[in-house]
Amino acid sequence: MRVLSGIQPTGRFHLGNYFGAIRQYIALQNNEQAFYFIADLHALTTVRNPEDFRANVRDAALDLLALGLQPDQATLFRQSDVPEVTELTWLLMTVTQMSLLEKCHAYKDKIAKGLPADAGLFTYPVLMAADILAYDSDLVPVGQDQIQHVEVTRDLAQRFNHIYDTEVFVLPKSHVLESTAKVPGTDGEKMSKSYNNTIGLFESPKKMRKKFMSVKTDSTPVEDPKNPETCAVFGLYKLFADETEQKALAERYRAGGMGYGEAKQTLYDKAMEHFAEARSRREELEANPDEVEDILRAGAAKARVKAQEVLSRAREACGMSARHAND
Amino acid sequence: MRVLSGIQPTGRFHLGNYFGAIRQYIALQNNEQAFYFIADLHALTTVRNPEDFRANVRDAALDLLALGLQPDQATLFRQSDVPEVTELTWLLMTVTQMSLLEKCHAYKDKIAKGLPADAGLFTYPVLMAADILAYDSDLVPVGQDQIQHVEVTRDLAQRFNHIYDTEVFVLPKSHVLESTAKVPGTDGEKMSKSYNNTIGLFESPKKMRKKFMSVKTDSTPVEDPKNPETCAVFGLYKLFADETEQKALAERYRAGGMGYGEAKQTLYDKAMEHFAEARSRREELEANPDEVEDILRAGAAKARVKAQEVLSRAREACGMSARHAND
Repeated sequence: MRVLSGIQPTGRFHLGNYFGAIRQYIALQNNEQAFYFIADLHALTTVRNPEDFRANVRDAALDLLALGLQPDQATLFRQSDVPEVTELTWLLMTVTQMSLLEKCHAYKDKIAKGLPADAGLFTYPVLMAADILAYDSDLVPVGQDQIQHVEVTRDLAQRFNHIYDTEVFVLPKSHVLESTAKVPGTDGEKMSKSYNNTIGLFESPKKMRKKFMSVKTDSTPVEDPKNPETCAVFGLYKLFADETEQKALAERYRAGGMGYGEAKQTLYDKAMEHFAEARSRREELEANPDEVEDILRAGAAKARVKAQEVLSRAREACGMSARHAND
Repeated sequence: MRVLSGIQPTGRFHLGNYFGAIRQYIALQNNEQAFYFIADLHALTTVRNPEDFRANVRDAALDLLALGLQPDQATLFRQSDVPEVTELTWLLMTVTQMSLLEKCHAYKDKIAKGLPADAGLFTYPVLMAADILAYDSDLVPVGQDQIQHVEVTRDLAQRFNHIYDTEVFVLPKSHVLESTAKVPGTDGEKMSKSYNNTIGLFESPKKMRKKFMSVKTDSTPVEDPKNPETCAVFGLYKLFADETEQKALAERYRAGGMGYGEAKQTLYDKAMEHFAEARSRREELEANPDEVEDILRAGAAKARVKAQEVLSRAREACGMSARHAND
């Protein structure tokens, strides 16, 4: 079973990205044939500074590898290193009904948020469909907000298969990520870049401590009992701690006599412990940029073999030669 | 000076295509660095049967070569054999304002004619811009109806250059084809597939004669003087004949005593003479499909060298590596 997932390099990852998605993607590498790509062609719709772009792509690769993505188990590559995907995008574009794109929430949401109405944002779901279909992906782990894009992909695949009376494309399924793991931000709301309440995964320990210490709490005096269930500090702690540890801290909340500062310190220590290995692995990788580049290139080479196979099938269905004249 | 032109393989070429465009394209090969491509990726927006598609592409290549396109002077290739063009299409898509595409006449016209509203038709000008920009084209010979697409191309090139503060793209200019050569169809109206009044370039002599004989004329009796200037037969004859020949036939019109049948026979003979060499060259080429394939492959190889150079510039401007990891 092929699992495919793309991660947009539009900035540094935070705890919300990690617990909400990345951790779950990485876990899938153990049981499935996982293809993970850094969606740099998608990022171009919003990142238009070459230095930021390069840094984002590099950081995304470093973060994923540091967090446990195993290049010998999962295939990691840059989207733009597989040019077959843009060829496939055009083939799909010719069978994409405008009405299908017009009803996509993501485009409407982005325009509502003030992003300029560009054709890249509008046709984004077609590129995404090509990403998914190029590798005969069976399963696409997505958040709730991306389910529609997998539906569009299935629509396009079916429409192409129908028009050309073939079975060129495998129909993918969504694997909706469990969103039970709500990740509170420093203000207690859902952690999200747009709320400016994030805690980055690899900030300096000093900055990280400062962020944890700034998590919003109520004004219950130190000596009084506190409710862990309504506390963002405890909400974050739950993500890192096992059941016994959770129970222990919850009891201290309810017993009274513990200030929030102490709870925050406990949370900070736990978080640092959780990411200690990733942090040191990231430093190692950062010192060896060639190793990272080699991993990405090897991943792209592997991904291209599959993409060429699928593109050839699609080209033949349309009446083109299976391979390019010059390849 | 690089001249670029794409020809859509959506059916067999007729006299209107030849005198209105193809003949003028081919003439440019003598003075300029000419790149001519068979726009098969564009044709996909309307031709969705693989057999028709293959036949159209093959016939377009045969026709162009038979009509005098010299592969040692001009570069002839299939659009889809240069995958760099679809990559460039995506880069341009991310800087294309929706409003620019929404005001394109060609899309509106096609929808009005009953073609389904597909994203391929809508984003067609972006692919066309990539076609033009990929080869640093200076001059694009176009009909009146395509001037807007060259304007869109200039807009996108300028916008990309501006956003990334570079000079990646050369700004192309339109070279508007002289439309003085009005080509009348069999009903006397402008020759066009949509009027169903065309005379194909390489129909069988028998069919061709039948078509010429069917050209609409008025009911002036044989013995009466006739007006060459209002006669479609004479209008067609003018395209083939030199001035002396035109004068001679015009005098016979005005003198009276000549029936339209005789004028039509004169026209038919002249047309057959005009295309005699092309017709026999086409038969030769048709018997040697490998030769044609070799010409197209060699053309694509040459075009790709240029497209890779331009794509590399564009990728670097965005923050990607100049070349693909695996190329």
